[in-house]
Amino acid sequence: MTRTEPAGTPLGDDFHLYDTTLRDGAQREGISYSVTDKLAVARLLDELGVGFIEGGWPGALPKDTEFFARAAEELVLKHAVLVAFGSTRKADVAAAEDAQVRALLDSAAPVVTLVAKSDRRHIERALRVDVDTACAMVRDTVSFLVGEGRRVFLDAEHFFDGYAHDPDTALRVLDAAGEGGADVAVLCDTNGGQLPLRLAETVREVAARTGLRLGIHCQDDTSCAVANSIAAVQAGATHVQCTANGYGERAGNADLFAVTGNLVTKLGMEVLPTGGAAELTRVSHALAEIANIAPDTHQAYVGASAFAHKAGLHASAIKVDPLLYNHIDPTSVGNDMRVLVTEMAGRASLELKGRELGVDLAGQPTALTSAVDKVKRLEARGWSFEAADASLELLLRREVQGPDRDVLDEPPFVLESYRVVLDHRADGEVISEATVKVHAGGERVIATAEGNGPVHALDAALRKALSPYLSWLDTVELADYKVRILPGHPGTDAVTRVLVETSDGQREWTTVGVHENIVEASWLALCDALVHKAMRQRQPA
Amino acid sequence: MTRTEPAGTPLGDDFHLYDTTLRDGAQREGISYSVTDKLAVARLLDELGVGFIEGGWPGALPKDTEFFARAAEELVLKHAVLVAFGSTRKADVAAAEDAQVRALLDSAAPVVTLVAKSDRRHIERALRVDVDTACAMVRDTVSFLVGEGRRVFLDAEHFFDGYAHDPDTALRVLDAAGEGGADVAVLCDTNGGQLPLRLAETVREVAARTGLRLGIHCQDDTSCAVANSIAAVQAGATHVQCTANGYGERAGNADLFAVTGNLVTKLGMEVLPTGGAAELTRVSHALAEIANIAPDTHQAYVGASAFAHKAGLHASAIKVDPLLYNHIDPTSVGNDMRVLVTEMAGRASLELKGRELGVDLAGQPTALTSAVDKVKRLEARGWSFEAADASLELLLRREVQGPDRDVLDEPPFVLESYRVVLDHRADGEVISEATVKVHAGGERVIATAEGNGPVHALDAALRKALSPYLSWLDTVELADYKVRILPGHPGTDAVTRVLVETSDGQREWTTVGVHENIVEASWLALCDALVHKAMRQRQPA
Repeated sequence: MTRTEPAGTPLGDDFHLYDTTLRDGAQREGISYSVTDKLAVARLLDELGVGFIEGGWPGALPKDTEFFARAAEELVLKHAVLVAFGSTRKADVAAAEDAQVRALLDSAAPVVTLVAKSDRRHIERALRVDVDTACAMVRDTVSFLVGEGRRVFLDAEHFFDGYAHDPDTALRVLDAAGEGGADVAVLCDTNGGQLPLRLAETVREVAARTGLRLGIHCQDDTSCAVANSIAAVQAGATHVQCTANGYGERAGNADLFAVTGNLVTKLGMEVLPTGGAAELTRVSHALAEIANIAPDTHQAYVGASAFAHKAGLHASAIKVDPLLYNHIDPTSVGNDMRVLVTEMAGRASLELKGRELGVDLAGQPTALTSAVDKVKRLEARGWSFEAADASLELLLRREVQGPDRDVLDEPPFVLESYRVVLDHRADGEVISEATVKVHAGGERVIATAEGNGPVHALDAALRKALSPYLSWLDTVELADYKVRILPGHPGTDAVTRVLVETSDGQREWTTVGVHENIVEASWLALCDALVHKAMRQRQPA
Repeated sequence: MTRTEPAGTPLGDDFHLYDTTLRDGAQREGISYSVTDKLAVARLLDELGVGFIEGGWPGALPKDTEFFARAAEELVLKHAVLVAFGSTRKADVAAAEDAQVRALLDSAAPVVTLVAKSDRRHIERALRVDVDTACAMVRDTVSFLVGEGRRVFLDAEHFFDGYAHDPDTALRVLDAAGEGGADVAVLCDTNGGQLPLRLAETVREVAARTGLRLGIHCQDDTSCAVANSIAAVQAGATHVQCTANGYGERAGNADLFAVTGNLVTKLGMEVLPTGGAAELTRVSHALAEIANIAPDTHQAYVGASAFAHKAGLHASAIKVDPLLYNHIDPTSVGNDMRVLVTEMAGRASLELKGRELGVDLAGQPTALTSAVDKVKRLEARGWSFEAADASLELLLRREVQGPDRDVLDEPPFVLESYRVVLDHRADGEVISEATVKVHAGGERVIATAEGNGPVHALDAALRKALSPYLSWLDTVELADYKVRILPGHPGTDAVTRVLVETSDGQREWTTVGVHENIVEASWLALCDALVHKAMRQRQPA
């Protein structure tokens, strides 16, 4: 992880697509990333091909410090460079002695983005120093980090409000960063109050008054964050900060997917590596899953309804020429024009996905038709295979003839029944106990176990029942468990969707279960996880 | 309902705020207004003070025909004028003989908006006529309706794409409308592919090349509908078409509330009657209720989180000067500044939050210290109060002396124990059954009930036990239920966080529960929900 310049896009370092989902996006109410979540987010952003991934604020948030430590060990990035975010030194401490500044170095991130106040009112009333001191804090900290071999960007906080109130102070802060050796001055609309025409004028003025390379960071408080970001690029900014799906504080940030969609399809800028744009929809939905926020079906470019037509007026005409009724070809951003539950429910994509999973559906049209039908039917009932490759693989393999029929025809175990009892006793203790009755290795086995909760108890009882028959069972453990309650359609009840990630120490695989009852949904996902492992176990490595 | 010009705003007819929620907004997947719904929407839009309400397409949709019939009888509008939407005459029929055109007259709406194709490719390939014929269809139909005493606006469909492809044809269509006596030519970005800078240029060019008054209608496919609408106004459009909360086909339309918020607070335009802007938040939420779509908490201006601050960095500074950290005063649009309580929060934000919840911690430093400690300790264990105001209020009230001590000291019920049994039977059926033992009204009560899943069964059993003792229990229902599994810290187990939203038909409140066991976590949130209701029940209204 020593690269300091983004690679892989035709524009190279000439244009920066900079993601701050892991720092500014995490400010959104309801988002609470674990360190493992953060690593998964970084991998997906890198697959998409963004140039910079701001990982967090090491030294200020323990989880972010840990993220950088684990990233240095575990994260292999193809395109992106990791960035640590932090503030300038305190007024009365040298940069080299400032604990927060040292934490930025300790993060080992090759790029540091420093935030600094650029609105005189904030400098005087919140920071409580004079402008000279504020500029010295910026200059010293940048210069210290550059001297230590880091590339440094400056986030000029509240820039647009500050520039409107007192342009000279705002520009002095930028210049201080430039004197220290900062690479990019990022103009931040921190309160999100800007509109595009005026913002573009300001960017043009600032570009004319400083020699610095400019970036843009917009919040969505006027519902113009995407438009403002694009307008800034048209006015000369060559670095744009976004978050996945616009996650962020208040009304959120500029949405990475809409900004990228606009840059690529409207302005013809190759800001992603080849094939990257076609990943926008998939990555958007996967990042929503990790954040545990339902994808916005009406999101521009990537929403499930973004190209769905309802109007009777259009429906017939669309057949004549789809491009007369869509602003772009939906497949260019990995989306689809039909009203689909997900992008996988089409023949072509399911065939492609099958190939990726090692299931060849190309020569088996009947199997493919049947698989598409099954996926559609299940997704209509709340199943989601986007994040559950192992369950999808099982579904596909059940449709085709092939070398794995034996495991599917003779699964490693068959359930007779289970019972889970939860007791909140009069002494306040809460007990979960599960009993399973299964058939395995030609025997009928009954086992009972306790757990922290109903699913844990069920998992424990199943393991107890099966461990004499499955030699590999001890290596397998539940690595992650996610639950989403899906609202029912009119006249139906809500259902629960469970995603289970399982690990055997060498690989991880994810399965899905859906049911009105959370325990049954979990059971379905747990069973798929073990059947999938049994199948892999019998395959040659 | 004979008024033909909007009244009530200081700008009068000089500026048109035009709502098309009932026609174009209803194209959104999932929206299905009844006629009664449509009347309720119209009343709310009128209360807000929009100038024009497009009610639907009479003659094309039976529900819309009925809406106009009932509106003529039942609807008393203070500010707005009703508009009927429809298409121009068919190519081979005179306007006076065209059934669709006659339906527009029959609607009795004083204003008619006619949609016409203005992109040569659509005229030739979808309409299958030449440009002269298309222009004659526009001119004749406008002229017929104007002759019948109607005010007529023209929606120029696909205008921006058409103008880019063949500007002369696009302008000829506008001019045909002007020749017929149309009042406003509305430039429609029907496919939603525009970006603000280019769109503003086009509006300026068109304004220079026709003498017509211009309007704007934007779709959100580039996530720029609001920005495009504002840019068009800045470029000379004096009529702007929006939908409530941006409802509409695909990515939706320009959001009425964000557009209005921007026009009023950013451009200083008085487009609503006095007091109207302060109704934006209320009307937005009420219209979401009628559409049966959960309000977007992160919507600009009107979202519940639009002015919510999370970062500890800001919370103390916000106390000093809220306007340094908000782009506008939230109360100016009827919203307020919620401060989120998170692990980053301290005394200042909790005190502010208490004030918002009606718990005065300012004079009680010991209670505040104790509350901060409790919140920190609970949040470290996975509790999250940012979305659970009711649970936080209970926590704070337990710390202070005050009028609600009685409910907290003597809660409406006390749990002795519960048991939940889940059976996946040998015949495949899954059964959930719960038994609760509680003390209420001086009695010990035991009740058993079944449900779809463990939590549903527990809720049902508790209601069965308590309904003889709590007269209000029947009005209270579980409105939403969210689950999140939180990974454990090293050495600890994962915990489950449950958020329960409860409604009594008049207000909604949210409570939280955290436990290793999902059923116990749900129990904690359910109990808080009932205790909170009991407390409100005893307070004077």
